[in-house]
Amino acid sequence: MPVSTPVPMSATLAADEALARRRAAGERVLSMASGEIGLPVLPALRERLAAAAGENAYGPVPGSPELRAAAAGYWRRRGLATDPGQVVAGPGSKPLLFALLLAIGGDVAVPVPGWVSYGAQARLAGAEPLPVPTRPGEGGVPDPELLREAVTAARRAGRDPRAVVVTVPDNPTGTVAPPDTVRALAEAARELDLVVVSDEIYCDLVYDTSAPAHSPARYAPERTVVTCGLTKNLALGGWRTGVARLPDGEAGRELGTRLVSVASQIWSSPPAPVQSAAAYAFGEPPEVIAQVAAARRLHGTVVRAVAGHLVAAGAALAPVAATCYLYPDFAPLRDRLAAAHGVHDGDGVARFLGERHGVGVLPGSAFGEPAGSLRVRLATSRLYGADDGQRLAALAAPDPLALPWIAGAVAWAGEALADLAAGPGPAARRP
Amino acid sequence: MPVSTPVPMSATLAADEALARRRAAGERVLSMASGEIGLPVLPALRERLAAAAGENAYGPVPGSPELRAAAAGYWRRRGLATDPGQVVAGPGSKPLLFALLLAIGGDVAVPVPGWVSYGAQARLAGAEPLPVPTRPGEGGVPDPELLREAVTAARRAGRDPRAVVVTVPDNPTGTVAPPDTVRALAEAARELDLVVVSDEIYCDLVYDTSAPAHSPARYAPERTVVTCGLTKNLALGGWRTGVARLPDGEAGRELGTRLVSVASQIWSSPPAPVQSAAAYAFGEPPEVIAQVAAARRLHGTVVRAVAGHLVAAGAALAPVAATCYLYPDFAPLRDRLAAAHGVHDGDGVARFLGERHGVGVLPGSAFGEPAGSLRVRLATSRLYGADDGQRLAALAAPDPLALPWIAGAVAWAGEALADLAAGPGPAARRP
Repeated sequence: MPVSTPVPMSATLAADEALARRRAAGERVLSMASGEIGLPVLPALRERLAAAAGENAYGPVPGSPELRAAAAGYWRRRGLATDPGQVVAGPGSKPLLFALLLAIGGDVAVPVPGWVSYGAQARLAGAEPLPVPTRPGEGGVPDPELLREAVTAARRAGRDPRAVVVTVPDNPTGTVAPPDTVRALAEAARELDLVVVSDEIYCDLVYDTSAPAHSPARYAPERTVVTCGLTKNLALGGWRTGVARLPDGEAGRELGTRLVSVASQIWSSPPAPVQSAAAYAFGEPPEVIAQVAAARRLHGTVVRAVAGHLVAAGAALAPVAATCYLYPDFAPLRDRLAAAHGVHDGDGVARFLGERHGVGVLPGSAFGEPAGSLRVRLATSRLYGADDGQRLAALAAPDPLALPWIAGAVAWAGEALADLAAGPGPAARRP
Repeated sequence: MPVSTPVPMSATLAADEALARRRAAGERVLSMASGEIGLPVLPALRERLAAAAGENAYGPVPGSPELRAAAAGYWRRRGLATDPGQVVAGPGSKPLLFALLLAIGGDVAVPVPGWVSYGAQARLAGAEPLPVPTRPGEGGVPDPELLREAVTAARRAGRDPRAVVVTVPDNPTGTVAPPDTVRALAEAARELDLVVVSDEIYCDLVYDTSAPAHSPARYAPERTVVTCGLTKNLALGGWRTGVARLPDGEAGRELGTRLVSVASQIWSSPPAPVQSAAAYAFGEPPEVIAQVAAARRLHGTVVRAVAGHLVAAGAALAPVAATCYLYPDFAPLRDRLAAAHGVHDGDGVARFLGERHGVGVLPGSAFGEPAGSLRVRLATSRLYGADDGQRLAALAAPDPLALPWIAGAVAWAGEALADLAAGPGPAARRP
């Protein structure tokens, strides 16, 4: 039976829809659950899409030559020599990740905490996810030692792990694993003969551009598949476009052939008009570079402000270095949360913030945290404005925190967190 | 192991790419392999897509309320009462069909001959396709008696068939199963407790509009899922948009929930700008109706002309009632093909037509025909012109066969078929 357990709805998309319903019902909600980027489409990209509206042919399954060449250039500029023939485009990096699991086969090791869909996709592909914890502050990269133990034990038990997923920069923690850890992961994958599937959808959102994330493709180029897209860097989630970079060499070509075959049976090709605009975007003309830089600054500024409230409330938080996510641990407040609010885990924290304050966040359980964990994920990406005018102003502002709608949203989150932390026991430090 | 056998590349897409490569290399090729519709985008739809180029949010997983309401209206006008809540949109009906197999689980009965991807999708979903022959001239609907036998035998052998796929109108045969057969299939599915997955992507391309195809949803509404899209009716394959209509009632709602969960984990949502244009198209304003009618007439006219050449060559051919496909059987010429050309099966016919005449067709083996079958599929949908000017002229022409490029293409096919049929033995009747 291919589906032995019920398939869970994507937690981020479900949370998004729930908040949209509450807002439609007139409730005042602060959406920090989904990582959808609330920023407008760059005009140059809008124009490219409109100009390609007459394109209705399927085109090649792995994407147009223009898109594949542009994506290859994008990776080359990031230190990964790439031939266009190594690129497979798809309708989002999510379907590419799923198709990769089908094309690789076998079971797959996934980081814990990790993005909500890795495990669900593995189960849909008929595999079992093998959860491997990450090291503190080094999210997205399964601890190489624990990976060795887990894969060895799984093989001894008759299972067939063939791949390991990494996320650099990381969702949900917003951290960037250091090069040494990425290298150690790559070496472990080589020893264990695993394909590395490196989800780098946040690669352009590292705040310190002088210290970019290192891809495992640097250290294990023969076995690393990199996926990326325009969803996060350019806020184009609704356009559905992503790209995968297959390893060079014979094994990489074979995997690429299988990936394209799977794609041909599931989705045919990425949407043609979108491919045209995506090719332009991956070419990184100056206005695209400026837009990504402005978004990166905005995420960093608002994330730091929310981080201040979390730390003030008494949560533990690894320094956020990238993305629009914060992944606090309320464990230091465990006794107080239980006594004051009857809250014992991340689901309870999310319920409290949602029901009492209209602040939507995702519990750590959605990312694979064990029972009793007091982690939740907050995303700042929906706080930048209620309409394109506000969002453009946020992108352009020297100090986005001075804009009243952003200041208000950050203060709202801060009040909710202070209320969560208040109660019996030592008082929380106020911001 | 989720992928126990290599995944085949979609035969239609592979043939398409091979022909594109030959054409790029300067060869003269006549593309009758893929069913991609070579007609331009209706200007009104181009404009809708361009106007929606700023839409970058994911939106709801099952599609926008506007698209779901428009698709519900589309089905209501075809005699199927539909609430928008029963509609799930996706990036093509192909991914919807795949996600349905995952959501239903178990094995699936498929018609033989049948579309190239049903079997491959079933295997990717971890299931085994259960091939069930169709009755002559009633393509797409597994023979209800043979379905009973196959499902009963499979269950006795410990397998778990839970669904049956039907295609009305049919690809590859271009026939439309009569209402009595559709009803008998629906009754068999009810007896056997199978979900009916009815692929109706060609529903608007029945030449005789006074005798539309009957959906199994008329006869087994409680268990029939209908899929449809704009790929064939409006030539929008490259836009990637499709819709599924779930059954009303509790079981239908449960299946819909599972389908949306699978969609949320594989593709998130259909491309947002395309959704806007698709909603307009499913609303069927007059220019959309006129465009579909013109395409239908054009397909019918060219199909009949090619059918004349096939019959003249001595092939057996069930009357084509819909689509742009012809599915001749060269069995009456078996001895002659073997003696004259060393051709013993549909692959040999396809090779002969391709290598000797540059005419690309698909062998019956791609549709599940047994070894030794002499069937091939020819599609007329790429014969309408080399550019949008020619294609628009073809749509508007009172007699498309009088246009030199269409006349030339049809004559080319006719000459290739006459050469195939020529040789020792009784001469083929010439057109």
